[in-house]
Amino acid sequence: MNNRTETSVTVIGLGLMGQALAGALLKAGHPTTVWNRTASKADRLVAEGAHLAPTAGDALRASPLTIICVTDYRAVHELLGAGDAEPDGTTLVNLTSGTSAQARESARWAGKRGARYLDGAVMAVPPAIGTAEAVILHSGPQADFEEHKPILDALGTVIHLGADHGLASLYDAAGLTMMWSVLNAWLQGTALLRTAGVEAAAYAPFAQQIAAGVAGWLPGYAAQIDSGSFPAEVSALETDARAMAHLVEESEAAGVNAELPRLIKAMADRSIAAGHGGEQYPVLIEEFGRPRAR
Amino acid sequence: MNNRTETSVTVIGLGLMGQALAGALLKAGHPTTVWNRTASKADRLVAEGAHLAPTAGDALRASPLTIICVTDYRAVHELLGAGDAEPDGTTLVNLTSGTSAQARESARWAGKRGARYLDGAVMAVPPAIGTAEAVILHSGPQADFEEHKPILDALGTVIHLGADHGLASLYDAAGLTMMWSVLNAWLQGTALLRTAGVEAAAYAPFAQQIAAGVAGWLPGYAAQIDSGSFPAEVSALETDARAMAHLVEESEAAGVNAELPRLIKAMADRSIAAGHGGEQYPVLIEEFGRPRAR
Repeated sequence: MNNRTETSVTVIGLGLMGQALAGALLKAGHPTTVWNRTASKADRLVAEGAHLAPTAGDALRASPLTIICVTDYRAVHELLGAGDAEPDGTTLVNLTSGTSAQARESARWAGKRGARYLDGAVMAVPPAIGTAEAVILHSGPQADFEEHKPILDALGTVIHLGADHGLASLYDAAGLTMMWSVLNAWLQGTALLRTAGVEAAAYAPFAQQIAAGVAGWLPGYAAQIDSGSFPAEVSALETDARAMAHLVEESEAAGVNAELPRLIKAMADRSIAAGHGGEQYPVLIEEFGRPRAR
Repeated sequence: MNNRTETSVTVIGLGLMGQALAGALLKAGHPTTVWNRTASKADRLVAEGAHLAPTAGDALRASPLTIICVTDYRAVHELLGAGDAEPDGTTLVNLTSGTSAQARESARWAGKRGARYLDGAVMAVPPAIGTAEAVILHSGPQADFEEHKPILDALGTVIHLGADHGLASLYDAAGLTMMWSVLNAWLQGTALLRTAGVEAAAYAPFAQQIAAGVAGWLPGYAAQIDSGSFPAEVSALETDARAMAHLVEESEAAGVNAELPRLIKAMADRSIAAGHGGEQYPVLIEEFGRPRAR
């Protein structure tokens, strides 16, 4: 493309997230080329100044950097490995959601085709893209990240995690586990308190305070894990387990769901059975770190 | 007892928590009577000025307010319902851990014996007692709480939740669910990241930030629950469920425990099966609010 410049960027995949990414790049002044299987999804972006490429291959060739955000990794390979769309000579930033194994496999796939490759994870909803609140994780060679960071910065708070292409997916999975766990714990507590007529709004600030308070313990607890030593400085696991039994009993008696309390207790019980009852909670890393058959 | 005054207080049960409670009361200048089945546990407190009562009945009669903190509710009833230990005319503050049903039953039991009764829950470890960091929840008649609050204030940040004697146990259970859920989510993420060589200390600040950030959403999400309306303002449950599938796949492929990810996904899948896929996450309150057979 004759208007290709160092700050040109291509976005492939124009779902809600892809549209938000392209919109933020346009807003930051980057010459932006877009492509989507269903071209009409580009209409609003074209009105805002985007160039709609006729084929995925044209889109790839339009910019030194292509950001791809589609349904899944299979769609990435179908789009970029077919027809004239070989990604040689370009840098791909793949923000499609998937697993670390898919990310590492895609890095090998891109490498064979002469493309540089960064894998990323968007930890934000589309309306937040382009603001500092949108955290976007990247993994892969640091030099490739640094080279394109001036463009990626338009998308939000961009972070490089390391050279292993699987890291963005792993951090994403870990962060989502935290998100859903805080929400589920809050729902469990809300369900319990509603049996006594307490409104969700009355309990929420209390739950918020506990979650934020416990979050503050994590760096200290991490030191126990990294040192592999778990002295019961604050509380012993067997003391915790007695309170867990009350929690299960409370949930069952109240007639609310008790699966989350039972799982909490089961993990601790297993660690106690393995001889760790006198140690502190982070010793459970040994249970979380090994599979258990369904 | 001839030295009984309005600020006298009795503590029954001198485990680690009971000793911490009595110690804080002594430090605040209250004439403090103590009793424990094994009298030697009072030695340190007596050296600090506590009066050791010869029987539980003598301990009850020594003060207008008795704080009891023993192993379980059965021990409460055994100690206070036997021999000369009838609690008539006194106010009992029961900080023993148990369920809301046990708290309500104990309130009836105390009422029949002419005692006023508050049920409480200590959300702190013994070393924190006597500092503002120690949150102690109380439920029961507000007037009884207000009357004794000047003494109870010596124990930490004391809070009255409402007249229903079960509330302290319910809030305690809800808070503990949040505590263990944040810890378990962090352990799940730490286990995942360790498979890529990431140290626990490297991941902890990220986990801390996510937990505190998500905690900030709770008051807004509570409004959806109280209104019974769950529009997908930020994200629809069926979108979340696709990321949950990646999380389960990631945990299984990494060879770490996958029970927590599977439970997260199972709760969402059930809600989607019930027709809520287009609604927002707090709609899961309907799943958390009803029992499911093991």
